[in-house]
Amino acid sequence: VGEMRELAIRARRAARVLASTPRETKDAALRLMAERLRRSADDLLRANAVDMSNARELSSAMRDRLALTHERIERMAEGLEQIAALADPVGEVLRETTRPNGMRIRKVRVPIGVIAIVYESRPNVTADSAGLCLKSGNACILRGGHEAIESNLAIGHALSSALRDAGLPAEAIQVVATTDRAAVGELLTLEGLVDLVIPRGGKGLVRRVVEESTIPVIKHYEGICHVYVDRAADMDMAERIVVNAKVQRPATCNAMETLLVHEAIAQEFLPRIARVLREKGVELRGCEHARRLVPWILPATEQDYRTEWLDLKMSVRVVPDIEAAIDHIERYGSRHSDAIVTRDEAASRRFLEAVDSACVFHNVSTRLSDGFEFGMGAEIGISTDKLHARGPMGLEELTSYKYVITGDGQLRR
Amino acid sequence: VGEMRELAIRARRAARVLASTPRETKDAALRLMAERLRRSADDLLRANAVDMSNARELSSAMRDRLALTHERIERMAEGLEQIAALADPVGEVLRETTRPNGMRIRKVRVPIGVIAIVYESRPNVTADSAGLCLKSGNACILRGGHEAIESNLAIGHALSSALRDAGLPAEAIQVVATTDRAAVGELLTLEGLVDLVIPRGGKGLVRRVVEESTIPVIKHYEGICHVYVDRAADMDMAERIVVNAKVQRPATCNAMETLLVHEAIAQEFLPRIARVLREKGVELRGCEHARRLVPWILPATEQDYRTEWLDLKMSVRVVPDIEAAIDHIERYGSRHSDAIVTRDEAASRRFLEAVDSACVFHNVSTRLSDGFEFGMGAEIGISTDKLHARGPMGLEELTSYKYVITGDGQLRR
Repeated sequence: VGEMRELAIRARRAARVLASTPRETKDAALRLMAERLRRSADDLLRANAVDMSNARELSSAMRDRLALTHERIERMAEGLEQIAALADPVGEVLRETTRPNGMRIRKVRVPIGVIAIVYESRPNVTADSAGLCLKSGNACILRGGHEAIESNLAIGHALSSALRDAGLPAEAIQVVATTDRAAVGELLTLEGLVDLVIPRGGKGLVRRVVEESTIPVIKHYEGICHVYVDRAADMDMAERIVVNAKVQRPATCNAMETLLVHEAIAQEFLPRIARVLREKGVELRGCEHARRLVPWILPATEQDYRTEWLDLKMSVRVVPDIEAAIDHIERYGSRHSDAIVTRDEAASRRFLEAVDSACVFHNVSTRLSDGFEFGMGAEIGISTDKLHARGPMGLEELTSYKYVITGDGQLRR
Repeated sequence: VGEMRELAIRARRAARVLASTPRETKDAALRLMAERLRRSADDLLRANAVDMSNARELSSAMRDRLALTHERIERMAEGLEQIAALADPVGEVLRETTRPNGMRIRKVRVPIGVIAIVYESRPNVTADSAGLCLKSGNACILRGGHEAIESNLAIGHALSSALRDAGLPAEAIQVVATTDRAAVGELLTLEGLVDLVIPRGGKGLVRRVVEESTIPVIKHYEGICHVYVDRAADMDMAERIVVNAKVQRPATCNAMETLLVHEAIAQEFLPRIARVLREKGVELRGCEHARRLVPWILPATEQDYRTEWLDLKMSVRVVPDIEAAIDHIERYGSRHSDAIVTRDEAASRRFLEAVDSACVFHNVSTRLSDGFEFGMGAEIGISTDKLHARGPMGLEELTSYKYVITGDGQLRR
């Protein structure tokens, strides 16, 4: 330890260079990084094989997330090329005014500086995060899970060497080489050197970062997402949305975890949707009312309503009205993404206003809560915080701003 | 203790009401709050007299900050009326797009929720903060210094009763009644109930909040502001700017603390500015070079360059070139507000780009780093953070946003 400080000092120096690097240089570096990943495929696969052989006791799902293949390396490389093609957020003038005393104020988008990203197993996060930080002019410190350490170091090595060849400081992208947990603790208190920490991963990881950090954190917490099927719902649409939100990719943070159904249509809708979900292999846990209508639904506990299943499991509850649905979401949700299905404009307005979540949907699947679907062209994750960035975070959300004021001798009176 | 949680639960409930309160109601409440302060003047002065008599051992400067007068109460009331006259930031559509699949995405400005403000002696902060939070749709928890407790409670009482009379929940504005330090510690870990903490005050206060909080913090840290007088400066303008930045109100965070002078003009400019500053009663501490030119300047230590004097004292340093000035600011500054005085456009461009501060000025006094001077119409303070809000914070900076997505059955493919 002490090591993290040295690393952060190097990152800070690199960040000063990146802040005034023109777009062309950054894009050329991104393309070189992509090419370098492809050319280093054998090295990456060899490093990954070491991680995989050390990870024999992990679940097969975990091992699948950890594994690199030629196809996954190609996808990382393409991701970097896509980032190169996006507009540069840095330098954009967000607002411009001239004050009565003649001074001109411009609010200009600038990089944040040094960003630390703390994440779990998937090695592709290393390349994605590095690319997004570089494009937005930030230096990054990447700390992945210990089980992916060899893969991450090999990816980091390829990316840094590409940076150097592009004429940029290699230290703009640094993968933390130690798996010592104390290193993260040190990183999280390097105020003045590290400007932002983004934890991406499970609840335990995010909690630990929040508790230890004296640096600003943007949390990517769990997504306990709801679909509320209103009394005035189009039932065919409701069925399609519920199935999509639960089944299309259940392990993602924007998948539905709890279905709320207005009691006026529960008798018709609930047996119907339960049958379809059961055919798709979904296990349901529900309230008493739901279980009267569909006896095979398991009883739900309080804790079930607070659970991010990330699996073919879900909770279901019958509610007396829209206000009860809103209250349920306020109480049990994680303010991520929640949807109403209804043909009633007044109900939709009420829901969209009252539900305090990053993304609120009317007649749209919660699975569409995503940076790419939103047209951001990239996504570093989905923030469940309300400060700085909320919901899908793209390149703009990786920037800050400064005020540039010019005049001819203006004084305070 | 446990008490803070109860208070925050009440604040959260109030925040839900405020989030959908129309502008007219909020403005009527603000005007009623102003009227109630005026009508309660005798109560406020009586409460303040208790604080003043408990504060006999404080410095006269501290006592002056603590004291209420009829005039100061009138100014608080006028401040609230001015806030009522400002536009409502809530509900503004920040961006609107329709995606190829037909879903419409609107990014809408919403309140943050519950904001805790932790501050020191001046009681007017209580009314100002409450007014700004209310207008931006946030509930606030106000924790002032123990020496102002009676005054703050009296002000809080007047404001809450006005809220109630305006038909809004009185708990939207709550002054913490205990001076127990443990209460702040509890407040700072109420995640999910409190959305943001703003510490306003000295370094010790801000540090403590940053270290203890698991809630997002926007720091209003010290201002170690610089004026760099370039070789190509108009010396008359430089003199006016330096004097204004130091002398006009030295106790503010945007006052200049260190003067940097290019060596090519130091021989002419430094004796001249030193004479003027001495006449104004300013004490100078400088580098060796500065002391050769003006022998009565005291020797500066490393620590002097890191000091926010907030007084008629300052540091001065002769630098070989603009890069040395930029490096000095990077090393010793607090990223608040820094100025260059020059007629050289290239030097100005370089300084404005390379200096990583919230506000960078060309030929303008640092004292103009201020929400009112920037035309925001209000100011909760000046953020030295880079996340969410940087520089002067007005009403918009007290808001977040959410994505409102409407469609006709869009699914993820």
